Amino acid sequence: MPEGSRRLGEFELIGRLFAPLAGPGGLGLEDDAALIEPPDGCDLVATKDMTVSGVHFLPDDPADLVARKLLRVNLSDLAAMGASPQGYLLGLSLPPEIGDDWLIAFAAGLARDQAEFGIALLGGDTTSTPGPLTLSLTALGVVSRGKILRRAGASPGDAVFVSGTIGDGALGLLALRGEVEDRDGYLAGRYRLPVPRLALGGGLPGVASAGLDISDGLVADLGHLCAASGMGAIIEAARIPLSDSVRRLVEGRPALMASVLTGGDDYELVFSAPPSAVPAIETLSARAGVAVTRIGSIEEGEGVRVRDGEGRDITPEVPGFRHR
Amino acid sequence: MPEGSRRLGEFELIGRLFAPLAGPGGLGLEDDAALIEPPDGCDLVATKDMTVSGVHFLPDDPADLVARKLLRVNLSDLAAMGASPQGYLLGLSLPPEIGDDWLIAFAAGLARDQAEFGIALLGGDTTSTPGPLTLSLTALGVVSRGKILRRAGASPGDAVFVSGTIGDGALGLLALRGEVEDRDGYLAGRYRLPVPRLALGGGLPGVASAGLDISDGLVADLGHLCAASGMGAIIEAARIPLSDSVRRLVEGRPALMASVLTGGDDYELVFSAPPSAVPAIETLSARAGVAVTRIGSIEEGEGVRVRDGEGRDITPEVPGFRHR
Repeated sequence: MPEGSRRLGEFELIGRLFAPLAGPGGLGLEDDAALIEPPDGCDLVATKDMTVSGVHFLPDDPADLVARKLLRVNLSDLAAMGASPQGYLLGLSLPPEIGDDWLIAFAAGLARDQAEFGIALLGGDTTSTPGPLTLSLTALGVVSRGKILRRAGASPGDAVFVSGTIGDGALGLLALRGEVEDRDGYLAGRYRLPVPRLALGGGLPGVASAGLDISDGLVADLGHLCAASGMGAIIEAARIPLSDSVRRLVEGRPALMASVLTGGDDYELVFSAPPSAVPAIETLSARAGVAVTRIGSIEEGEGVRVRDGEGRDITPEVPGFRHR
Repeated sequence: MPEGSRRLGEFELIGRLFAPLAGPGGLGLEDDAALIEPPDGCDLVATKDMTVSGVHFLPDDPADLVARKLLRVNLSDLAAMGASPQGYLLGLSLPPEIGDDWLIAFAAGLARDQAEFGIALLGGDTTSTPGPLTLSLTALGVVSRGKILRRAGASPGDAVFVSGTIGDGALGLLALRGEVEDRDGYLAGRYRLPVPRLALGGGLPGVASAGLDISDGLVADLGHLCAASGMGAIIEAARIPLSDSVRRLVEGRPALMASVLTGGDDYELVFSAPPSAVPAIETLSARAGVAVTRIGSIEEGEGVRVRDGEGRDITPEVPGFRHR
């Protein structure tokens, strides 16, 4: 429904802020749609996330971090499928209280991460809303034809691997709520600004048998891999890679280990691969500059079981969160 | 931010409603992203629209029509670029008052138009919101490499064509507001359920020199084509194709002709082509089953001028609406 000239200045500002973010495929943001030129022999991978102020982020979160996290969460989905990002479309529903300063910082955050990940804006849409700020991002990537990494595909005897360290996101959220200590802000930083494992993920097709990113929690997401593969898994809690910050907190409060196992927002990759793939995975890990740790194995059956150092079952009752 | 089990039943309902809409590329909506397999030698075209309840549609509009219009508006963008649709991603931000009945009708609308246009759901995201219902749709299509139809490309001497009839959308909105008569509901139907001109648009690459769809109004959108092409255009008001309903209303109230010229929401195509292309366009028109009418021509200069049957300039002062 046309709304005349309401907020025209702001929408023109967006043109000024966003047109410079557009790559060649964005066609200057002047056409009806964007252009993606996938190389021959490639499949395209597409993922979409919506976030709402007050639900997925706080109204006073820094706008540049809101932008970068939204972009990174989508890039993490591409990494999880083994795809290389090509660009993204952005939808903004803007309430009246979002002013120029917020938009300028938001665009600056996008610009920074575009440079970091070598992608550009393709297009999108901007609307007004009487409700909370609502953001929608669709990321597009390419992968060699027939090579996407799926959740299904794990076989009995496959090893289970994770990238990076686990639990930083969950304890980072607790730190932001003042529930655990985080003197140097490392954990909050990991929660607010995850790192999509694109270099690692891009190398996994043909190496890993199944994989996804950890957004709902390690046990929940490995559970998704198991369910899709028709398998079970067993992981050794003592093998789960922890950052120094998480290790210190868990040593002081062992109950926090449950948050490590079931907390979301790490955006590390969890994947399965036959033991014969270990040398290839080590090469990939070194090339991508991210640690990869073997934490368990796939077995016949269903569900994920967690064992402690003495072989006791410490599987959490609730495997993780479902994001809304 | 995880929200625990809030509205779990509804989110599970969505899984039940939406998984059946997913095509093979949707991977059962179970993976982190969707798969699109573009044929070799094709470019991909992507477009995204966001709509907000109370801004772009009314809270009591029928849910199936809300779904179908959102899908069709995006498909119209693909048609405008000469692309064939492949599928779409859908984002839903749901307020508490959206219940099962609404979602069931919404999904039914999608299913109906998926069948009509031969496409399937690829993936998406669902969130809760304390604000108004907000929908985001990203449509993906393919076009032969290097062949997209852009707004730029018109040359002096090109003829200007439109598909279908013009003004139905604008007068349909007036009819829904009770401002004009619409006994058989034809105009309201055209406003609520535009027809994306996919068969025609898909044939225009290599035939038309420039084109887009009419969402902001004929004069405004032809103005976009002119601006992108660095050209002007002149159109003959008497040549603009009108439906019987619009013709009757305009004969009774000639001032309504301004709405025909500047009203949005027709989602017909306006395009330019050299006069030598007329036979090819006639063939395309017949094959697509949609009328194509020559309404004017491209000339050196800038802007769109409208002439009446006596050669007088009746160019409207405001060319059209900008959608918010």
